[in-house]
Amino acid sequence: MANKWVYLFHEGNRTMGELLGGKGAGLAEMTNAGLPVPPGFTITTETCLAYFASGNKFPEGMQEQARQAMKAVEKETGKRFGDAENPLLVSVRSGARVSMPGMMETVLNVGLNPQTLQGLAKLAGNERFAYDSYRRLISMFGRIVKDIDGALFDEVLEAAKAKTEGKRDTDLSVEALKEIVEEYKVIYQRELGEPFPDDVWEQLFQATEAVFRSWFGNKAIVYRRHNKISDDWGTAVNINTMVFGNMGDDSGTGVAFTRNPNTGESVLFGEYLINAQGEDVVAGIRTPLAIAELKKNSPEIYEQFYNLGKMLEGHYKDMQDLEFTVERGKLYMLQTRSGKRTARAAVKIAVDQVNEGLITKEQALMRVTAENVEVLLHPSFEPAAKEAAIKEGKLLAHGLNASPGAATGKAVFDAERAAEMAGKGEDVILVRPETSPEDVGGMLVSKGLLTQHGGATSHAAVVARGSNLPCVAGAEGILINNELRQFTVGDIVVKEGDMISVDGSDGTVYLGALATMDVDFQHEAELASLLEWADEVRRLQIYMNADYPRDAERGIAFGAQGIGLCRTEHMFFEAERRPIVVGMIMARGDDAKRKTYLDQLLPFQRVDFEGIFEAMNGLPTTIRLLDPPMHEFLPSRESLIEEITELRCTGSDPKALADKEKMLELVESLWEANPMMGQRGCRVGIMMPGVTEMQVRAIFEAGCNVVRRGIKVAPEIMIPLVGHVNELKLQREALEAVAKQVMEEQGVQIPYKFGTMIEVPRAALVADQLAEYAEFFSFGTNDMTQMTFGYSRDDAEEKFLRAYVEKKILPHNPFQSLDQEGVGQLVAMAVERGRAARPDIELGVCGEHGGDPDSIDFFHRVGLKYVSCSPFRVAAARLAAAQAAIRHK
Amino acid sequence: MANKWVYLFHEGNRTMGELLGGKGAGLAEMTNAGLPVPPGFTITTETCLAYFASGNKFPEGMQEQARQAMKAVEKETGKRFGDAENPLLVSVRSGARVSMPGMMETVLNVGLNPQTLQGLAKLAGNERFAYDSYRRLISMFGRIVKDIDGALFDEVLEAAKAKTEGKRDTDLSVEALKEIVEEYKVIYQRELGEPFPDDVWEQLFQATEAVFRSWFGNKAIVYRRHNKISDDWGTAVNINTMVFGNMGDDSGTGVAFTRNPNTGESVLFGEYLINAQGEDVVAGIRTPLAIAELKKNSPEIYEQFYNLGKMLEGHYKDMQDLEFTVERGKLYMLQTRSGKRTARAAVKIAVDQVNEGLITKEQALMRVTAENVEVLLHPSFEPAAKEAAIKEGKLLAHGLNASPGAATGKAVFDAERAAEMAGKGEDVILVRPETSPEDVGGMLVSKGLLTQHGGATSHAAVVARGSNLPCVAGAEGILINNELRQFTVGDIVVKEGDMISVDGSDGTVYLGALATMDVDFQHEAELASLLEWADEVRRLQIYMNADYPRDAERGIAFGAQGIGLCRTEHMFFEAERRPIVVGMIMARGDDAKRKTYLDQLLPFQRVDFEGIFEAMNGLPTTIRLLDPPMHEFLPSRESLIEEITELRCTGSDPKALADKEKMLELVESLWEANPMMGQRGCRVGIMMPGVTEMQVRAIFEAGCNVVRRGIKVAPEIMIPLVGHVNELKLQREALEAVAKQVMEEQGVQIPYKFGTMIEVPRAALVADQLAEYAEFFSFGTNDMTQMTFGYSRDDAEEKFLRAYVEKKILPHNPFQSLDQEGVGQLVAMAVERGRAARPDIELGVCGEHGGDPDSIDFFHRVGLKYVSCSPFRVAAARLAAAQAAIRHK
Repeated sequence: MANKWVYLFHEGNRTMGELLGGKGAGLAEMTNAGLPVPPGFTITTETCLAYFASGNKFPEGMQEQARQAMKAVEKETGKRFGDAENPLLVSVRSGARVSMPGMMETVLNVGLNPQTLQGLAKLAGNERFAYDSYRRLISMFGRIVKDIDGALFDEVLEAAKAKTEGKRDTDLSVEALKEIVEEYKVIYQRELGEPFPDDVWEQLFQATEAVFRSWFGNKAIVYRRHNKISDDWGTAVNINTMVFGNMGDDSGTGVAFTRNPNTGESVLFGEYLINAQGEDVVAGIRTPLAIAELKKNSPEIYEQFYNLGKMLEGHYKDMQDLEFTVERGKLYMLQTRSGKRTARAAVKIAVDQVNEGLITKEQALMRVTAENVEVLLHPSFEPAAKEAAIKEGKLLAHGLNASPGAATGKAVFDAERAAEMAGKGEDVILVRPETSPEDVGGMLVSKGLLTQHGGATSHAAVVARGSNLPCVAGAEGILINNELRQFTVGDIVVKEGDMISVDGSDGTVYLGALATMDVDFQHEAELASLLEWADEVRRLQIYMNADYPRDAERGIAFGAQGIGLCRTEHMFFEAERRPIVVGMIMARGDDAKRKTYLDQLLPFQRVDFEGIFEAMNGLPTTIRLLDPPMHEFLPSRESLIEEITELRCTGSDPKALADKEKMLELVESLWEANPMMGQRGCRVGIMMPGVTEMQVRAIFEAGCNVVRRGIKVAPEIMIPLVGHVNELKLQREALEAVAKQVMEEQGVQIPYKFGTMIEVPRAALVADQLAEYAEFFSFGTNDMTQMTFGYSRDDAEEKFLRAYVEKKILPHNPFQSLDQEGVGQLVAMAVERGRAARPDIELGVCGEHGGDPDSIDFFHRVGLKYVSCSPFRVAAARLAAAQAAIRHK
Repeated sequence: MANKWVYLFHEGNRTMGELLGGKGAGLAEMTNAGLPVPPGFTITTETCLAYFASGNKFPEGMQEQARQAMKAVEKETGKRFGDAENPLLVSVRSGARVSMPGMMETVLNVGLNPQTLQGLAKLAGNERFAYDSYRRLISMFGRIVKDIDGALFDEVLEAAKAKTEGKRDTDLSVEALKEIVEEYKVIYQRELGEPFPDDVWEQLFQATEAVFRSWFGNKAIVYRRHNKISDDWGTAVNINTMVFGNMGDDSGTGVAFTRNPNTGESVLFGEYLINAQGEDVVAGIRTPLAIAELKKNSPEIYEQFYNLGKMLEGHYKDMQDLEFTVERGKLYMLQTRSGKRTARAAVKIAVDQVNEGLITKEQALMRVTAENVEVLLHPSFEPAAKEAAIKEGKLLAHGLNASPGAATGKAVFDAERAAEMAGKGEDVILVRPETSPEDVGGMLVSKGLLTQHGGATSHAAVVARGSNLPCVAGAEGILINNELRQFTVGDIVVKEGDMISVDGSDGTVYLGALATMDVDFQHEAELASLLEWADEVRRLQIYMNADYPRDAERGIAFGAQGIGLCRTEHMFFEAERRPIVVGMIMARGDDAKRKTYLDQLLPFQRVDFEGIFEAMNGLPTTIRLLDPPMHEFLPSRESLIEEITELRCTGSDPKALADKEKMLELVESLWEANPMMGQRGCRVGIMMPGVTEMQVRAIFEAGCNVVRRGIKVAPEIMIPLVGHVNELKLQREALEAVAKQVMEEQGVQIPYKFGTMIEVPRAALVADQLAEYAEFFSFGTNDMTQMTFGYSRDDAEEKFLRAYVEKKILPHNPFQSLDQEGVGQLVAMAVERGRAARPDIELGVCGEHGGDPDSIDFFHRVGLKYVSCSPFRVAAARLAAAQAAIRHK
C-alpha cells in the first residue's frame, strides 16, 4: 500500500500531533467533536521530511491524495476548488509538532483567479471583498512563495490608501482595489518574468512547498535553537476551507485564551477585530478590541465561543489558545492548542485547575516548568525607585503589560545592533515600532522589549512571553526614529545607548536604570502550594550554595534543606584580610612564619563560620576548604611587569620598584601555565601545611561557640580536588586530628563528617578507594566538565563553545546542562563504586548543574541524595526534582 | 606454636629470600650445598617488621630462639660465644630481599670483651690481631649502634698511625693498639655516659637492633626510592661466625664476580686484599689486588674459589657476586648473590649464557632490563672530539672505568651542592675523594661521577653501575681540595662550575664539554641477537614518534615498524615559515585572506611530508594534524607588555610601538587562562577552516609524488583532541573530501586511514561512538594523564608532583609511567568500546608512556597493536614488549 500523506480532518485526532502537527491534530479533534471547523485536510510532517529527503520533491502519490481529499471537502462544502461559479477557497497553513508562533508561513485565499474571483464576488454579493481577497493572495503568494520583497506591494497599497479620505485599507474603493490587483500583477511579472498563476492547483502546491521550505527559514532555525526544538521534525501543512472575517461588520476574526495568559486568572482573554482577516490581528497592524467587546456586540456568538472554549479546556485539561473567525454571523473554530503563558499564569492555572478538580497534583507539577518558577522569582523594580522615577518625571510611557518582569538596559533600535552590543556583554532593551520574525535573533539576546505598536498577542508579546523576556507592547506614547536611532517622548530624547527600564508587569517604561528587588516569595500563595506538592513527591533534597549568612537565610526561605557548598575563599579575599593572606604566601617554605599569619586569620574565619552556623541552625552545612591557587590573591603578572618596566624607565621611585620586583618574583614563582590544573584544592592544603588546619580549627571553634549558645550545628568538611586516595587520607587524618583536638579543648562534641569533592575524572575512577576515607561525595560537575572535555571554562565559551553549539557539534553548552553522555558516565560510575564501598555514603552535587532541570533529572536517576544550587534556584529545583520523581516513578 | 623468628643457615634455602633476605637465603643455599660457609643463623625480615610494629621491640621469643641457634653454632664450631677460653666471635650483617649495597649496617667482631680478647689472642697466637679486632669492634659499634661521630675514633687512629714509620694501620704495634682501645673506650664513655658493654649478648642484640633501624636510615630510604624498593619489606640480620682475613699474610678477603660486571666477559673478576677484613675492600681505603693475583699467590685457593664460583653460577643460572675470606689458608664463602652489572654486561652475559646452554632465550630476555638497553644505546664521546681534547692537553686524568657511558657537566665537590645545582636544571659531575652512602642523594642527581680513590667495587662504582651513571673511579691523578671547591692536575685548576667530561667506558677525564655521539647499533652483536629473540616473542609492534626524516631513519635502524606520531607543528615553527603563519593568524575571521597564507605554506608542508614518506618507504605513517594553540606561534604577552611599556615611556619609536600594540592586541585576543584546555587540536581545525584542509592536501600531494617515484606510502591521518563524536565526524568528512580530491587530481590512489587521538577523558567514555568515524585510535596518554588527574604538566612537576612522589602520595610520576589504576581504566574502556564498535580498529599509544617498560606491560595486557616512542627508546621497547609477552603468556 502506498504511504498515506494526506489526512482529512475527521481522519485524525489529538494523539496524532507528531504526524499532523499540533494545529492539524487540534483541527481533527475539534472536527470529530462536532465543533464548527471549516472542512479541510492536513498534509503530514512525514511528507515534509520526504520532501527534503528527496531534494525538495513531493513524494509519489501525495498530490493525487490531496486532489482526492479536496473532492471530499468539495462534497462537504458544496463548493468546488477552481470553479468559476461556486469557488472553494482555501488557506495553506504551517503546523509543526509544537507551536512556533509566527516562525513559519501561511498563504490565504488560495484558489482565486480572474474566473473564481467573479464567482466569489457574486456569491458574496460584494465585489470589493473579492478584490480585497485577491490582492491579499497575490501579495502573500508573491512574498512568501516567490520571495518578492514585500515592500514593493506595500508601497502600492500605501499610495492607494494615501489617496483615500480615511487613509485606512477599509477606505479603499473597488476601483482602487482593482488597480492595486493590476499593479500587483505587474510587479509579480516584472520580478519573476512570469505571470501570477491562474491554475489553482499550482497555487496550492507552490504554497505547500513554501510552507515546507519555511521550516528551514532563518527565523525558524533561530527559534528552534533557542527553544531546543529538533530540526528533524518538519512541519505539516493544513488546507482549510477559507472562511472570511472580512465580509463586513457582521464578520470578524479573533484569538483568545481560555484563561488570562499573563496572570492566569480564569477569564476568557483575547482580542477581536471586526471585518478583518486573521493576519491583521497577529501582525498588530490594527489595534483590536478586547474579546469582552464581542460580548456586547454579538452576545450569542460570544456565548457560543465561550462555551466551546470551556469545553475544549475540559477536553484537553489545559488552558487553550484559540483562533476563530465569524463569517456573516457564523462562528468557525480555526485552531485550538495549549496556550503559551507567563510563568505566573502557568503556576496559577495549574494550581487553580487542581482546585477545580480538572487535573491532578502530579499533572499540575508537570505543567509548570522549573524555568517558570525561576522567572517568577526574578526581581521586580523597587516600588520606591518607581515612585521616585515618577516624581522625577522619568516615567516615559505606558503600554501593554505584554510579558511580565523588570528589565533595565541600553536602548537599541534594531536587532543587529542588539546582537552586537549583547555580544559585548552589555544589557540591552530592544525598542521597535513593532517586531517581525526577522527580529527574533535580536529579541532573544535583549533583556527586555519595548514596542510602539501592537497588542497582547502581537508578535513581540508572544515571543517575549515564550522567552521570559519582560515586554511592554503598544506604548504608543513613544515616537521612534529608526534613522536617528532614538525615540522621543515629548521633549525627552532617548538615544541609542541610553539606559531605560521596562516593567512588563504593569506596562510602564522609565528613563534610567531603576533598582530592582526580589519577589516576596511568602506572598506567592499558588507557588507555595505547588512547591508543597512538589515536596510531597520529590526524592532529591535541595541544598544551596551559600557563602554568607544572608545567602543562607535567603535559600532557607526558598526551601533549601542544607548548604551543599560553602566556599571559603571569599574569606581570604576580603580587603582587611588580604595583607595577611599575602604575608602568608610570602612566607613560602617557612612554616613557622606562615603560622603567625594563619593565627591572625583564624579569628576572622571563626566569625565567618559562626554566622553561617547560626543561619543554618542545625541543617547540614558543607564547607569546602580553600580551593583557588594562591596567585589569585596576588597582583597579576602582567600588571606588575608593566609597572616595573615603567618604574625602571622613569627611575623615579627605587623603593616602589624594589617592592614591585619582590612581588613579581613571588608571583613568578607561583605562576602557572594552566592554573585550572595547577596547585589548588587539596594540593594547597598538602603543600602549605597549616592552612587547612587553620580552617578546620576555625570551623570547629565556631561550631563549639554556637553550640554553647544553644544552636545546633552539622558541619561537613569537604576536601576539594582530590584525585588520589592518598591525598584524601593524608588531609583527612591531619584535619580530623585538629577537629578532635578543638572539641577536646572546648569540651563540646559536634556531629561532623569529612568528605571530598568528586571533580577530577580520576576521582570518579577510583571512587571505591575514596569512599574509604569519605563519608560523603559532592560532585563538582563544573570542574569535572572542564577536565572531561578538556575545556577551560574561562576560555572555551568565547573561543569555540558558542560556535560549537551553533554548529550543533554539541547539543548544548555542557557547563549549563550536564553532559550526561560523557561526564554523566563518570558521575554514575562514582555513585556506584562509592556506594559499593560505603553503602551509607552521602551523595550530592554542588556544581551549577545542581540548578538545571535536565541535570536534576539525571541526578535523580543516578540516585543522589541532594542537589545544591544558588539560593535563587532552590524553588525551581524543588519543582524539577518533583518532576524527575514523577517522570521516573 | 610460637613464631619462628630465627633460622639456622641449614634450615633455609634460596627460595626463602623474602623471609631470610637475599644474603641469608644465599648463605643457606651454600651451606646446604656443602660450601665452606662459616656457621651462623638468620633473624628474619618478619622479625624486623614485628620490631617496628611494636615500637622498636623484639618480638616475644626471638631472643630465646637466637640463644638456641647460637648453641647450635657453638656445637658446630666447637667455640662458645662469650667464652674466655675459646671465644666464638660473630658478624652482624643486614640482608634485605634485594641487595642494597652499602645502604645498611654491619658490625664485625661481636663477642669481644676484655676476657674473650685474651682467648682470641691465645687461640690466634697473635695479640696484635686480637687488639686490632677489638678496636674495630668498639669503633664500629660506637658509630653504628650508638651514633657516635666516627671522626672521633678516626682521629685517634690517624694520630697513632702518624707515629709509625709506614703510616699504615698494619704498622701499628700491639702497644699502640692497646692504647687505641683504651682511648676508644674513653670516647665511648664520654659520649654516652656509659661504658662499652662487656656483655656479648648485649653487643649482639644491640647490633641487631641497629641493623633493623638502619632500614629507615636516610641513605637507605633514598636508595629505595630511587630503586623503587618498597619500604615495607624490612631487612633480615645474619649472624655469622667470624672468620678473619686479617690474621696475617696467609689470610685475606675479597669480592669477586663470576663474570666481568662491566663488559660481561666470561672471566672471574674481582679484588683481593691480603691481611684485611671485608670492610677494607668495600670502603676502598686500600687499593686491592686484582683477583688474578690470588692465582699467583695461592693457586689452590684460587682454584677452589674459581670452581665454587662456576658451581654457584650454574646453580643459580646467573652471574654471581661473591664475598670470601681466607683465614690462614682456608677459604670461607660469605656471600653469593646475583651480581649487579652494567647494561653492556647484562646483555652479553644473558646472550652468552643462552649460547652456553645455561639459560633459555626467554630467561635471557627477562634477565636484561629495558633500561639496560637504553643505557647501552646512550651516546659516547665522539672519537674526534676525544682526540682533539688530548691534543689540546685537556685529558686530565685516567682512572678506573667503573661504570660506562659518557657524561659532561659542571664540576661540584659535595652532594648538597650537586643537589642544589641539579635542582636548577644544571648538569653536574660530582667529584669526590671517595664516596660514602651519605653522598648517594647527590650522586643520583649528577650526570656522572669522578673519584680520586677507590676501585671497581668501591661504593662509588657500585652505586654508579646500579644507577647507570658514568663513573671514573680512583683517578689518583687529580688532587681534590674540598675547601677551595676545586681539584688540580698539575697546573690545571678545575673549580666548581667548570665543565668537565668523564668517560666511564675507558676511565678518562677531560676538561671542557666533549661532543657526544650515538652508539653504533649495528655493531652491538649481542644486543642484536637479544632483540631478535625479543621480536620472536613480542606481540606489540613498536612504532616511533618522529617528526623529521632523520628521526625516522634512526628509528628504523633501531627496529621501528612505523611512525605512531609525526607532529606537524614544527612545520609551522620553522623560521622562514613563521611570518606566513603569523599572517595567517592575523587574518582572523577573514577566510579568504587566511587562504592566501595557507597557499604559501602548502609547498613547505608537501616537501616535509615527502621526506617523511621516503624515509618510511611504505611503513605506516601516522600524521597528527596541527595541535598547539595559535598563540604559541606569536610573541608572549608578557614580553610585549614589557616592550610596549618601555616604548611608551621613552617615546622613541612610535612605529615600533604601533606594531607592538597591534601584535599585543592579537595576542590578547588569543590569550587563554588555561591554554592546555583551550583552542587547540581539532578545535583549531574546526574554528579556522582551511588549516587542516591544507595539511591534508600537502600529505596527499606529497604521497602522490612519492608514489610516482616508486616508493610506497601509508599515511594515517590523526585528528587530535577529539572529545565529541561530531568533532571527528565534521573534520573527517571535510578532510577525507580533500584527500579524495587530491588523489583524483593527481590520478594516484594511496591507501590511507583516518583516526583520532584518545586523549581527553571524554573520548574514552564515548569511544564506541568515535570508532564509527575512526579507523584507528592512538592514545595520547600525556594529555589524558593531565586531564584525568587535573595536572598541568608544565606546572605540576615543580609545584607539587615531585613532593607528591617524595611524600608517597603518588607511587610514581604518572607522566613517566602510566597511572594504570586511574588513567589505565580509561584506556581499557576505550579499547573495549572501540573494538566493540569496530572490531578491526587499529589501537596504539603515542604518549611518552609508549617507551616506559611498566606502561608497555600494561599496553600489552589491554591488547594494543603498537606502542610508539622516541627513536632512541625503540630498541628498549622491543625488549619490554617481549618481556610483557613472556610475563603474560
